[in-house]
Order: sequence, then C-alpha cells, then structure tokens
Amino acid sequence: MVVKNLMGTNVVAQIGIIVRDIEKTSQVYADFLGVEKPPANWTDTVDKAKTKYQGAASPARAKLAFFDMGSLQLELIEPDEHPSTWREHLDEHGEGVHHIAFVVEDMKGTVKRMEANGMPLIQKAEYTGGRYAYMDTTDDLKVLCPYMHTFHHIWTQQMT
Amino acid sequence: MVVKNLMGTNVVAQIGIIVRDIEKTSQVYADFLGVEKPPANWTDTVDKAKTKYQGAASPARAKLAFFDMGSLQLELIEPDEHPSTWREHLDEHGEGVHHIAFVVEDMKGTVKRMEANGMPLIQKAEYTGGRYAYMDTTDDLKVLCPYMHTFHHIWTQQMT
Repeated sequence: MVVKNLMGTNVVAQIGIIVRDIEKTSQVYADFLGVEKPPANWTDTVDKAKTKYQGAASPARAKLAFFDMGSLQLELIEPDEHPSTWREHLDEHGEGVHHIAFVVEDMKGTVKRMEANGMPLIQKAEYTGGRYAYMDTTDDLKVLCPYMHTFHHIWTQQMT
Repeated sequence: MVVKNLMGTNVVAQIGIIVRDIEKTSQVYADFLGVEKPPANWTDTVDKAKTKYQGAASPARAKLAFFDMGSLQLELIEPDEHPSTWREHLDEHGEGVHHIAFVVEDMKGTVKRMEANGMPLIQKAEYTGGRYAYMDTTDDLKVLCPYMHTFHHIWTQQMT
C-alpha cells in the first residue's frame, strides 16, 4: 500500500447486508431488535441515480431497508436482476455482509487515492441527499490476505 | 420468534473477522486506516478461559488483534487448529465476518431467552475483564431467510 490512511476516517457508518427477500428479513430483524419493521424502498431509476457499474450505465436497482443500530446503520439490500455489485454479490456469495461503509468528506479525492492504490471503483450512483461509490479492495488485499472478503466493497459516501 | 427485542440492545459493539494470518492482515488494516499495527495476543488457555464449544471443554485458542473504529471495535481473529466456532468458520466459509457483537447487561438471561427462541449457545469462555457467549441464530433465521449468515454468530458480552 503506497499511501496510509486512505479514507481519512475509521468510523464505520453502515453495515450493508444482501438479502433475497427484504420483506421477510426486515421482519426478522425488527422482531429480533424490538423495533417497527421499516419500509423497504426501491433506489431511483438510472436516469435519476445515474448508476454506473463497472464503468457503464446500468438500470440496476435495489430495494433498501434501514435499521438504526445505535452508532451505525444496518442496511438490508435486495437487488434486482440487472448487473450491479449487489446482484454480483448475491450470485457469487449468497446472502451476507456486502459492505462496511464510511462517510468521507472528499469523495472524488478518496476515490482517486484508492484507485491509485489498486482499489478500483466498481459502482457509483446518486440519491436524494448524497452519492456513493463502492470501491473494490479485493486486488490490494489479495496480495496480503488472499481470502479477505470483509472489505471487498467499501462504500464511501459523500453527504452533499 | 416468540419474544421481541431478545437482547435488550441494538448497539453494535464489535465486528469480528476471521483471518488466516493475523500479522499480515493487521498490517494491511493498520496501513489502510493510518494507525499503528496493534499487538496480536493469544486468548487464555482452557484452564483459565474455561472455553466450552458445543457443550464440551475445548483447548481451542485464537490470536486476537483489535482496531478502534470510532464507535465500535474491529476484531481480527486467527484460530488455532482445535475445535471452536472460529476454526469452524474458517474451514467452512474461509476468511470474513464471523460475528457482530452486542454488549448485554444480563448475559445469563439473554442466553436463556435466545435459546428459548431457537438460537443455541455454541461457545462461551471467560477472559480478563469479562466473558462472552456466541449464540447461533442460523436455525431461527433459516426459517425466514434461509441464506442469512451475517448474524450467524452473535457475541453477547457481559462486562464484569
């Protein structure tokens, strides 16, 4: 790794979990945590979200539900069938942790620094109130720890 | 699920990650986060830790390293060869997220409530300053979300 402290933060803001059936899984978590089942909403369409996956525009969307877990947010993600990091994760790894998210102040700069250090951008999009970028750290971590998948996707989000 | 809000908390205190080589992986995370590489220390031997895995005493130990991630702790775990939830995870799933941890006030009561709701205790032990219990939520979650592995092991810790 060339540059240290690539993101400028170490605060985990969100844990993102890929699920097959968000309605069912949301209810399980709601009961388990003793809270109301949150609504599950679709992400915006590509014209509004400007979703790019592997460098190309993608119509991919996902249904999202959020739980307040004290200091961080738990995000459940049910992907649709179109190409996305979410769909890829479900097809290749099944349900489970997809990303650990950090909120960064300078998203463009952070993406550049990470890409310069062998962690390419794999998906980005916009949404009401912000934008996100999933960075793929697989190549970099493969060198040092071949089977590490935890930080496979790091979601760096810039609040606008 | 019979009882709601089984743990009495929703604050994620720790994310635990199984790794094969804790020295290498700790260095990667230290560089990535811009912090000093923390020491990696073995858990206590069974006579002191009173480690029980699947109801039986086990000599299993693990090498642990901790990172302060703001509001929560990141724990890297390199298991030894003896039977444990850590070793089982490495053999069956490879490296990756092993547990999401919650600190509970009444560990005995929480373990009882979770067991009564189909989430058995799979491993417990003591350490200087506390004790832990890994609860297996697989059976319960399988009914509603067959492939959910994220909360496969929930580590409920009682600070003493």
